[in-house]
Amino acid sequence: MNDLPPDDTPAPGARTLRDVARLAGVSVGTASKAMNAGGRLSAETRAKVLSAAKTLDYRPNDLAQSLHRARSMTVGILSTDSFGRFTFPIVEALERRLFDHGIAVFMCNATDDPARERRHIEQLLGKRVDGLIVTARRVDKRAPIVPAVRGLPVVYVFSHVDDPDALCLLPDDEGGAKLAAGHLAKLGRRRIAHITGPRHFEAVLLREKGWRAGLNEAGLPAEDADCLSGRWSEGWGREAVETLFARGRGAPDALFCGNDQIARGAVEALREKGLRVPDDVAIVGFDNWNVMTEATRPPLTSVDMNLGALGGEAGAALIEMIAGGALAGVRRLPCSLVVRASCGARGPAAA
Amino acid sequence: MNDLPPDDTPAPGARTLRDVARLAGVSVGTASKAMNAGGRLSAETRAKVLSAAKTLDYRPNDLAQSLHRARSMTVGILSTDSFGRFTFPIVEALERRLFDHGIAVFMCNATDDPARERRHIEQLLGKRVDGLIVTARRVDKRAPIVPAVRGLPVVYVFSHVDDPDALCLLPDDEGGAKLAAGHLAKLGRRRIAHITGPRHFEAVLLREKGWRAGLNEAGLPAEDADCLSGRWSEGWGREAVETLFARGRGAPDALFCGNDQIARGAVEALREKGLRVPDDVAIVGFDNWNVMTEATRPPLTSVDMNLGALGGEAGAALIEMIAGGALAGVRRLPCSLVVRASCGARGPAAA
Repeated sequence: MNDLPPDDTPAPGARTLRDVARLAGVSVGTASKAMNAGGRLSAETRAKVLSAAKTLDYRPNDLAQSLHRARSMTVGILSTDSFGRFTFPIVEALERRLFDHGIAVFMCNATDDPARERRHIEQLLGKRVDGLIVTARRVDKRAPIVPAVRGLPVVYVFSHVDDPDALCLLPDDEGGAKLAAGHLAKLGRRRIAHITGPRHFEAVLLREKGWRAGLNEAGLPAEDADCLSGRWSEGWGREAVETLFARGRGAPDALFCGNDQIARGAVEALREKGLRVPDDVAIVGFDNWNVMTEATRPPLTSVDMNLGALGGEAGAALIEMIAGGALAGVRRLPCSLVVRASCGARGPAAA
Repeated sequence: MNDLPPDDTPAPGARTLRDVARLAGVSVGTASKAMNAGGRLSAETRAKVLSAAKTLDYRPNDLAQSLHRARSMTVGILSTDSFGRFTFPIVEALERRLFDHGIAVFMCNATDDPARERRHIEQLLGKRVDGLIVTARRVDKRAPIVPAVRGLPVVYVFSHVDDPDALCLLPDDEGGAKLAAGHLAKLGRRRIAHITGPRHFEAVLLREKGWRAGLNEAGLPAEDADCLSGRWSEGWGREAVETLFARGRGAPDALFCGNDQIARGAVEALREKGLRVPDDVAIVGFDNWNVMTEATRPPLTSVDMNLGALGGEAGAALIEMIAGGALAGVRRLPCSLVVRASCGARGPAAA
């Protein structure tokens, strides 16, 4: 199973320009001119060559062309996200953008193994990629990639490095959270608590900051006791509701949750306590993950990180850098709010 | 943003063998021998060349080597699954297997657009890929890929075509369902109903067949009225429970559900009816999707399609075909049952 064919095995069906020239009865040079639409040739000769190429199913060898030009028209995507839920929409949009520019994408999964990542980079450099995209789970800042080839463009997306010369594209977590808190305040909610994930995630700190900013702008207090940090799970959403609603000093009338799983757990716990969503408590989640937003009863209002747009931007930035543009710094792309019934802006309470 | 550099832009930092030879003070031929560890050379000369290569950060050009051997050491993965939940573990395992054989993977997303798929194939053939992997959402049989290059190896994984010469790797849906139904029967359940997805999915028909086979083997009846087909959603799981438990002729004591979302909806509906899982009704799902199995209360027993193993097999099969092996036919790889509390084999009921 592991035996590879020897190097002199003929490539399957690969016809050469020489075959085309022979069939057309012209020189290789003439065939080349005809295929490349260059040089002065009679229409008849050109037609003869193109017809021979068609008959033989000849396809110009992109590898050969890559050797003669400076670019291979390939890039590598290096991902350390073995789960894929966040990475996939980014990679999909990236691939689409690059494909539309004739660039093919090598997909490499390093799953947090630095030695494997190094070997992947070596392989990609051997393939003469024109650039690299690095994407991750964004738990923490990662070490910058230092490609051995100086000047090779690298774009970090949903991934953050401590290097002022690096270009990092991230969702604007703080802005998204501010949007959510402000939306709840505008709907007339007066005590808006925040249930979120583990504090070693930079996103958790940014979302908390956005929650505080949204409340401050609405003239509402952001009490420390109303910000509960735990796990990224439904179980934590349920537990946090128990804590918030067991206290003596009155219950929140709204919850902004750090992700959709926490929000769903909170909605279920509230229902089991006999509280109505959104009538008694309005809820907004984060991620706009359809699996969660649609299954939650009522459907969940949530912040969308616009990961597809983020991937498209990363592709456009890489193309710009390959063309010689010098891009650097951290760019945060706006999130948006997708309104469903759980916040009370529409659905039973608003009706 | 869309302007690409002209073809004569120097590749960033790409040193040639000529540079290495010049620095080492040897001929290009000698430098080549030293780099390839071939030919008769003094240890001193070889060391001089390797040192020069290191100083210049020289890397053999894999594109150039690909032109001189029959293989490009690249393959293309063509996916039509824009969602990614099923595709991702397959692609991840595939990429890992191929990388371990020095093969790099082009990732192409065609998202059900035949024209885009055709252009992707053209691009991959231009890159002289050694083979193709085709993966999909497996809703229905798809049309076979007909690469213009005769004899190019193609492996279909989680994707099914009507072509006896094609190799298709699929999970054994029927076997997995039989495992689930048999497990519930062995635990003493006597009326095991089946709530599943839309009947235009081949997987739905196969899982129903497996459910019947499991019951038959246990000497239990598989009533048509106990098999409910609907959507792949939690909402459908809840609705189906209403139907099954509203009837006059007594309620099921177990449910085998066609996916984990249906199972989760069913568990919630049962809890809201005051029925205990697994004490009153035992539940088994399908997919073993951790997001669902862990959040369901109690955690869900589920059939795992072993998608990682499927991806690894696809990679191994493609390597075998590239090496000249002729593989064809439909191969179904075994599923396994992951036991948690919802079936009653352990947890409250079994304790």
